Amino acid sequence: MKVGGTATRTIWLEPDGAAVGIIDQTLLPFELKKRRLITLDEAAHAIRAMLVRGAPLIGATAAYGMALAMRADPSDAALEQAAKTLLATRPTAVNLRWAVEDLRALLTKLPPAAREAAAYARASQICEEDVVINRAIASVGLPLIQKAWEKKGRRGPVEILTHCNAGWLAAVDWGTALAPVYLAFDQGIPLHVWVDETRPRNQGASLTAWELGSHGVKHTVIADNAGGHLMQQGRVDLCLVGTDRTTATGDVANKIGTYLKALAAFDNQVPFYVALPSPSIDWSITDGRKIPIEERDPAELAEISGRLADSGVARVRVIPEGSTAANPGFDVTPARLITALITERGICAASREGLLSLFPERRAAE
Amino acid sequence: MKVGGTATRTIWLEPDGAAVGIIDQTLLPFELKKRRLITLDEAAHAIRAMLVRGAPLIGATAAYGMALAMRADPSDAALEQAAKTLLATRPTAVNLRWAVEDLRALLTKLPPAAREAAAYARASQICEEDVVINRAIASVGLPLIQKAWEKKGRRGPVEILTHCNAGWLAAVDWGTALAPVYLAFDQGIPLHVWVDETRPRNQGASLTAWELGSHGVKHTVIADNAGGHLMQQGRVDLCLVGTDRTTATGDVANKIGTYLKALAAFDNQVPFYVALPSPSIDWSITDGRKIPIEERDPAELAEISGRLADSGVARVRVIPEGSTAANPGFDVTPARLITALITERGICAASREGLLSLFPERRAAE
Repeated sequence: MKVGGTATRTIWLEPDGAAVGIIDQTLLPFELKKRRLITLDEAAHAIRAMLVRGAPLIGATAAYGMALAMRADPSDAALEQAAKTLLATRPTAVNLRWAVEDLRALLTKLPPAAREAAAYARASQICEEDVVINRAIASVGLPLIQKAWEKKGRRGPVEILTHCNAGWLAAVDWGTALAPVYLAFDQGIPLHVWVDETRPRNQGASLTAWELGSHGVKHTVIADNAGGHLMQQGRVDLCLVGTDRTTATGDVANKIGTYLKALAAFDNQVPFYVALPSPSIDWSITDGRKIPIEERDPAELAEISGRLADSGVARVRVIPEGSTAANPGFDVTPARLITALITERGICAASREGLLSLFPERRAAE
Repeated sequence: MKVGGTATRTIWLEPDGAAVGIIDQTLLPFELKKRRLITLDEAAHAIRAMLVRGAPLIGATAAYGMALAMRADPSDAALEQAAKTLLATRPTAVNLRWAVEDLRALLTKLPPAAREAAAYARASQICEEDVVINRAIASVGLPLIQKAWEKKGRRGPVEILTHCNAGWLAAVDWGTALAPVYLAFDQGIPLHVWVDETRPRNQGASLTAWELGSHGVKHTVIADNAGGHLMQQGRVDLCLVGTDRTTATGDVANKIGTYLKALAAFDNQVPFYVALPSPSIDWSITDGRKIPIEERDPAELAEISGRLADSGVARVRVIPEGSTAANPGFDVTPARLITALITERGICAASREGLLSLFPERRAAE
């Protein structure tokens, strides 16, 4: 999507072929800084410290991390070490595991001398596939926004609520939940996005607001507490969120707080859609309660970064000395609260039958 | 309740009789600073800028504001002006209106020369009544916590979730929702409080955490997004919140986000209790959707105050330049989601019949 009028991606191979370029998302929205990843450890750190985040982008970065490792040492031992290092960075996102296992399976079969080139080629392919998938999600989701506009008699903007960041910054381009929003915007449908701040890391306030604003989409940041009230007031036409992991039965693990918005949408009969690329589906899990939930550093809640009046950036503590904090990273929204899933193959019910109707090959696999 | 081992209140008449003392709650949790209010405008400013906040404390401060006005000028015109000024400070809290109308009715009947003394006496009485009411709420609510402890087989602490600040800092002493918590703690029942951060003003992280910690009560600050997940995980035994205004049918307007927690409690069969002093009941409204909801300054969301590493306090901006924010201050939790109301007269269903069973004189009034 666009930044300052220029089409931009979140990850790319540098022209010299030696490094992988990323945007350091920890500095947004105050600074757009690009970084070069040269080693496996830099790639792992970028994932762990959330310089890159969002399930698809984590997968793409992990794939390039494998390639960087093979560039340094294409031995079997280095391959195993790279996979182990990357898998340990973040426990919840299924794309991470998927990408690492994909590269490991591919590279194990090759002689060491062939691994570097194959790894770079596959990482690039994973990125391109992500763009194709998310562009498809945009097309599949677009009619839902068009329908909402028709339902309003084409009067006033379509009011969309989103949580966390499931935009192009979370993917290679387009994003998942925001992909249909960008396509609808580019096609001239008037819309306005309510952006949940998304405590404790503020991905909504810092990333979603930034990327929507950069592309020109009207939006308003709200406290995570406010969405239920807006839905009660009839000021939300639909909710659109992403997912870090979707079970085979349509339960969705997404950023902490998603469940609360789904409850409010259900209570107010506001459609609640989850957009997902199929690599986010974990076909091995049939109960969302079985998804491991990452407990993150309480400091993420206790301290907040922001811009000072003099335009420097500072970190401030917002809880009393002596008080502790807890910081679960995700929650599980049960399928019963989800109106439909938006995938690259089409829209389906959030259920086993719904998902199998779009991915019939999985039925055969069982 | 206690601060550094010393019993402390939120508002008091200074020994010299010339000023009313308050704690400047905008500086908590980092600094405990007491201020002297000498004029009506200082009292109005203290309410508007939230140096004092919480429905009962707003009422008490408004009452003393009327007294300060009468001290300066006991004329009819000054009386009307004082009432008008104070009523305009905050639109949602019913205690404010109740206290101002109470003082106005009392003072109008008196000759100007008698107004100052009568106003101070009545303001002091309102404070003492608040303490008596909240101490009664503590006693009425205590068995709910005892029951939760028995239900756990007296194993492990009772896990209580609260939103915003409905503790002694919101009242003159004791608080509403936290009154039973303090009494249970003082009686030796092991308990632990999950404190919702309560964006955008962070009253939970800054005030509730501070006052619980000062009194010695174990607690953990969580993002507003986390409560639903904790309830799904069975880690919350009961929710206890306050209210700024309760309708005659048991709907509750409380800090924005309360509705989302009530939805999660209902979905997970966690008891959801609302504690209220009877002056918070607005008998004239029978539908929560009719309660006016205050739209507050978006800067409260866009900027956050906190302590810098060098121990200074700074204000940082957390949304991109060019992005806007919206900041509704309250939401309405419908009675159907509330397990019971805790009042100074007893516990009742959140319904017209429930409230009338405790306040039968209101039935006669209709």
